[in-house]
Amino acid sequence: MGIIDTWGPWLRHALELAATIAFTLSGVMVAARSRLDAVGVYAVAFLAAFGGGTLRDLLLDQRPFFWVRHVEYLWGVLALATAAMLFMRQRHFEPTERVMQLPDALGLGLFAAVGVDIAVDVGMPALVAVLMGVVTGVFGGVLRDIVCNEIPTAFRDHRPYALCAFIGGWVYLGLHALQLPEWALLSVTVTTIAGLRLLALWRNWRLPLWRVER
Amino acid sequence: MGIIDTWGPWLRHALELAATIAFTLSGVMVAARSRLDAVGVYAVAFLAAFGGGTLRDLLLDQRPFFWVRHVEYLWGVLALATAAMLFMRQRHFEPTERVMQLPDALGLGLFAAVGVDIAVDVGMPALVAVLMGVVTGVFGGVLRDIVCNEIPTAFRDHRPYALCAFIGGWVYLGLHALQLPEWALLSVTVTTIAGLRLLALWRNWRLPLWRVER
Amino acid sequence: MGIIDTWGPWLRHALELAATIAFTLSGVMVAARSRLDAVGVYAVAFLAAFGGGTLRDLLLDQRPFFWVRHVEYLWGVLALATAAMLFMRQRHFEPTERVMQLPDALGLGLFAAVGVDIAVDVGMPALVAVLMGVVTGVFGGVLRDIVCNEIPTAFRDHRPYALCAFIGGWVYLGLHALQLPEWALLSVTVTTIAGLRLLALWRNWRLPLWRVER
Repeated sequence: MGIIDTWGPWLRHALELAATIAFTLSGVMVAARSRLDAVGVYAVAFLAAFGGGTLRDLLLDQRPFFWVRHVEYLWGVLALATAAMLFMRQRHFEPTERVMQLPDALGLGLFAAVGVDIAVDVGMPALVAVLMGVVTGVFGGVLRDIVCNEIPTAFRDHRPYALCAFIGGWVYLGLHALQLPEWALLSVTVTTIAGLRLLALWRNWRLPLWRVER
Repeated sequence: MGIIDTWGPWLRHALELAATIAFTLSGVMVAARSRLDAVGVYAVAFLAAFGGGTLRDLLLDQRPFFWVRHVEYLWGVLALATAAMLFMRQRHFEPTERVMQLPDALGLGLFAAVGVDIAVDVGMPALVAVLMGVVTGVFGGVLRDIVCNEIPTAFRDHRPYALCAFIGGWVYLGLHALQLPEWALLSVTVTTIAGLRLLALWRNWRLPLWRVER
Repeated sequence: MGIIDTWGPWLRHALELAATIAFTLSGVMVAARSRLDAVGVYAVAFLAAFGGGTLRDLLLDQRPFFWVRHVEYLWGVLALATAAMLFMRQRHFEPTERVMQLPDALGLGLFAAVGVDIAVDVGMPALVAVLMGVVTGVFGGVLRDIVCNEIPTAFRDHRPYALCAFIGGWVYLGLHALQLPEWALLSVTVTTIAGLRLLALWRNWRLPLWRVER
């Protein structure tokens, strides 16, 4: 357990970093596709990286925000977006959707797990806690797409994304009822969500089609 | 008065339920028109049903939110949206705009009346209280349309909608100054707003055209 | 100093008024371009005038909002939007973008300066304070454009706007570290931001193009 206590926070930190990087890059890519200027790229990168957690904290009335407690993450997103712009300019390089899938799935899992965790801590009912996890994982991307004047990908591409976070939220609550320690809760939840998401992409799962034609 | 005390809360509950159902279905319909997937339908249904009240509570700094106090409403919207999707799939049925007009007008009236009521309770000035009523009644639909990448209907179809809530808010304040009991305030306000809205639809009233051409 | 104490608040009030007028008119104009109805014009005018400051106060958890403390500004925006609609109807007149540039630049400067000032007061770290200034100055316009279903101008027209507020924010912090009195801080910051913005328009500066082609 001593070992886990040591690598637990380190692992969480590493995952948080990977998630923020993935979401920042997704922001830069969507902003590029929408032909925003440099200021727009920064704005969308911030929204993608911090939008979900900030909305959750607004709804749960939790302060200070993550990016106030950890200003170094704000600087990091600023630097990363700058680097991405310079790099894309020089190399005509665009990180493919495929390369982003692993960090994005980890990001979804981590953000959603942390979201449920916080909501449970402040005493939210089960369904609300699960939905707060979904909001944390998904609404950064939703706000990113709204600012870029698109219907949010999470709501229209028929691939399970928010659904993985929703299922993972219930897994978290189940394990929480069994009184597992927090590091176990978080790592199982993150693995479940990221695993489901990657499995869904690999097996090409689709959300149930609820309407064949218009 | 004993009788009113008995059926007062019951009536309010019934109206709240009808309003939430109407707004949920409006969300499902707009999401269907925008060809969202099942996850998108749920998200837009939640936004349409709870968006206005949640924005009001954020602005007035009131917690807990309605859907935290009444998680059964969250489950209800989830179930209703599921039922609507299954039903629309099987029957190629779409609730016509016409069928929705009565519950939607009642919903506007009820949400707006409750919004003014809460704003007055926390001591807001008159105009702010009236605008909080409008926000409560109208912004669920506004957020629904923004997520579906449309200009909000309430802001462009030239039919009085928010205006009815605005007028009803002043009626509420007038009666409040006369120190009428709360059940009377609420029922007169709801009736005024819903009545104005239905009258406007029936007589085909239009908002003053403020600009003939571009 | 006695003289400055007298005209200091007066000047700030006059600038605040000019800024609110400029932002309200920008809302009316964008709403007109998007062919909104009268209700939509009011809504967008409110968002443009108060959206940035309200979002900042939500993020910093500051109440009451500016428009709750100063309801006369709400009435003013209502009256101004009405006047603008009547006037534009009669004269087929549209305030040109050129005429709006001076008040808009002053508005950006003033809103951003006040935003940094408030964020510093509540103890935010440097970068957060500067970003709160940018949010205050820019997000009224961003929300205005989102409701009108456009990609925000501030994020896509390649002219320095948010950037001027960003630079001005650091100037504020620099002078603040020198312990200058508040009136000096505010007036230098406003002048810097508005001056940079007007200079950028006059010299036709462009944000660095970060991507030559798609």
